[in-house]
Amino acid sequence: MQPHEGRLRVHYRLRLAPGESPEGRALALAVEQTVEMPADLVPDAARERATGRVEAVEVEAGTARATLSFEPALAGADLGRLVNVLFGNASMQSGVLVEEVEWPRALLDGFAGPRLGIAGIRDLCGVPDRPLLCAAAKPVGAPSELLAERCAMVARAGIDVVKDDHGLADQPWAPFAERVARCQEAVERANRETGGRTLYLPHVTGAWPELVEQARRARSLGCAGVLVSPLVVGLESARRLAAESGLGVLAHPALSGAFFDPGHGIAPAVLLGDLFRLAGSDGVVFPNVGGRFALDADACLAIVDNSRRHLGNLAPSLPVPGGGIELERVGYWIERYGADTMFLLGSSLYRQPDLERAVQRLVRTVEQHAQ
Amino acid sequence: MQPHEGRLRVHYRLRLAPGESPEGRALALAVEQTVEMPADLVPDAARERATGRVEAVEVEAGTARATLSFEPALAGADLGRLVNVLFGNASMQSGVLVEEVEWPRALLDGFAGPRLGIAGIRDLCGVPDRPLLCAAAKPVGAPSELLAERCAMVARAGIDVVKDDHGLADQPWAPFAERVARCQEAVERANRETGGRTLYLPHVTGAWPELVEQARRARSLGCAGVLVSPLVVGLESARRLAAESGLGVLAHPALSGAFFDPGHGIAPAVLLGDLFRLAGSDGVVFPNVGGRFALDADACLAIVDNSRRHLGNLAPSLPVPGGGIELERVGYWIERYGADTMFLLGSSLYRQPDLERAVQRLVRTVEQHAQ
Repeated sequence: MQPHEGRLRVHYRLRLAPGESPEGRALALAVEQTVEMPADLVPDAARERATGRVEAVEVEAGTARATLSFEPALAGADLGRLVNVLFGNASMQSGVLVEEVEWPRALLDGFAGPRLGIAGIRDLCGVPDRPLLCAAAKPVGAPSELLAERCAMVARAGIDVVKDDHGLADQPWAPFAERVARCQEAVERANRETGGRTLYLPHVTGAWPELVEQARRARSLGCAGVLVSPLVVGLESARRLAAESGLGVLAHPALSGAFFDPGHGIAPAVLLGDLFRLAGSDGVVFPNVGGRFALDADACLAIVDNSRRHLGNLAPSLPVPGGGIELERVGYWIERYGADTMFLLGSSLYRQPDLERAVQRLVRTVEQHAQ
Repeated sequence: MQPHEGRLRVHYRLRLAPGESPEGRALALAVEQTVEMPADLVPDAARERATGRVEAVEVEAGTARATLSFEPALAGADLGRLVNVLFGNASMQSGVLVEEVEWPRALLDGFAGPRLGIAGIRDLCGVPDRPLLCAAAKPVGAPSELLAERCAMVARAGIDVVKDDHGLADQPWAPFAERVARCQEAVERANRETGGRTLYLPHVTGAWPELVEQARRARSLGCAGVLVSPLVVGLESARRLAAESGLGVLAHPALSGAFFDPGHGIAPAVLLGDLFRLAGSDGVVFPNVGGRFALDADACLAIVDNSRRHLGNLAPSLPVPGGGIELERVGYWIERYGADTMFLLGSSLYRQPDLERAVQRLVRTVEQHAQ
């Protein structure tokens, strides 16, 4: 989908009550998301430039697909304001799904998007064309030494990226500065031994001052990127971190499932595919179908498609399916998602009797599937 | 509910699949929210101190009420980490509701809570015991002069607090600095004329640097507080703003409805009543039953109860029902929610042929309902 000139166009799926007017419902939503008052009370100046417009309404089986349009200046280049225009008050109604968004150029131009994107991550890892492999440093509660050992183990085995579990923060058992120093050192040592280029991405969290301080420290210790949970720290804070830290950003979907009700929320492809990309996420972890999470196969494929589709001047985000990736099935997932994917291997990795050989086999598997 | 010593206790309502083991499901959730790996792979050091524990499971009509407990140090005094422990990965499963939380003293002691609370807001407004009245400066799209006129109008009429609509940010039609200066000046002028003490609360949004700059400017212009949307800017950023800005904070529930599915999410009383209060919100706007939003009467009453209940050393938050408050029915809502409530009047206010007299009548109504 090419960006267009003009307004922000949002396709909502609205669940209709018996006898409810689809047009009336669509108009009420357009008002709710903007002027929040009946049309006859809106001053002339505001009516034309700020009220949401109903562009089209189609009715299907008890639902209406309503296309509304909004003036991009309502949101400006602030991702918090943008998600508020899409779903802020609408979230408190029932049966409102943000199904698809057509992004106008004027809005996209305000967002730098992923700084590295897929090509940049490939460069850092020295992996030009095969699917990438990711593992997690875990669990929370383990001391820094043990987490660092696990990082070293997967790095020596040939995993491309090792990221913290997103529950790791600054707990007393593995304080942030100590943990990041040890894990990064362990990965660098493994890289020297193998000639590999595994990246370690520590999890950063907190309000902005902590985010900045943690990112600064990670960078000074040699990390090329961090893991962040945009919905936990705030979408706009995540965006600024990506834009200003000089680090790559892998986004974690914590809390995102609150928005995934098929009848009320924000479609996963819009939230994780579009909005996380606008937040500058170089890679986006999503809860893969077939694992312990609830998204279906189509929803997962739509996330992958949106994260890599043409979108103004924004670099693509690397889709990172996780939560359902067993070693034996990686071939299947590559066929499904393509080579420009990073597979987040679950804790099944740590069950391998010989982790190094298991990963080497895996690398041979993914090498058969170059771009 | 008195805070207790020990662990964070969370009551989840789990929707069971046919034949699913309630205990197995509860244990899987305890693992998902903490160590994220099978028990046999968790190192000894982490198992005891970090893995969530299943304290009790009761089965009722296809659901399980599972009480899990967590080590408070997992979250520390970071509200983002806290909500992640409660619902981060769980959000991506299906049929998981955070129904109730028992907060341990160790955790509560890390949060300062509302700085003003109900008593502080009453002091600022000079209203010792009757219910408070709030109006909104709106709509987005109007120029600053017009918004300022509306602020002056409701202030002269005797409204206690006038807040920005939360869609107002820094749009070109009413840039933040200009808008806040004019509205605050208009309210101060009205106060001088009437001898009243109406407060004007501008909406602040953005990543932390913008939040801080907007709060600083609001304060320098004489505002005593601001409106913020904690789920838009991030819960932990909202908390820091309340703790460090020296301003009162009224919290707006934008995006909160994503969590309000009765079978999957965070109960409104926990999210708006407890978590927004931990975020330091002196007042909490909630989408009142009977208006254009989806919460039912019990859910609204539970929010009110939680925002004012005894909770460690935290001051109570002032509950602010909005979205369903018509002038004629304020008496009913006072009976329901009590005098320690602020009623956010909708745009019906602007429909009054004589706004001043309508508000004066309203003030007489609420004066009959002192604490």
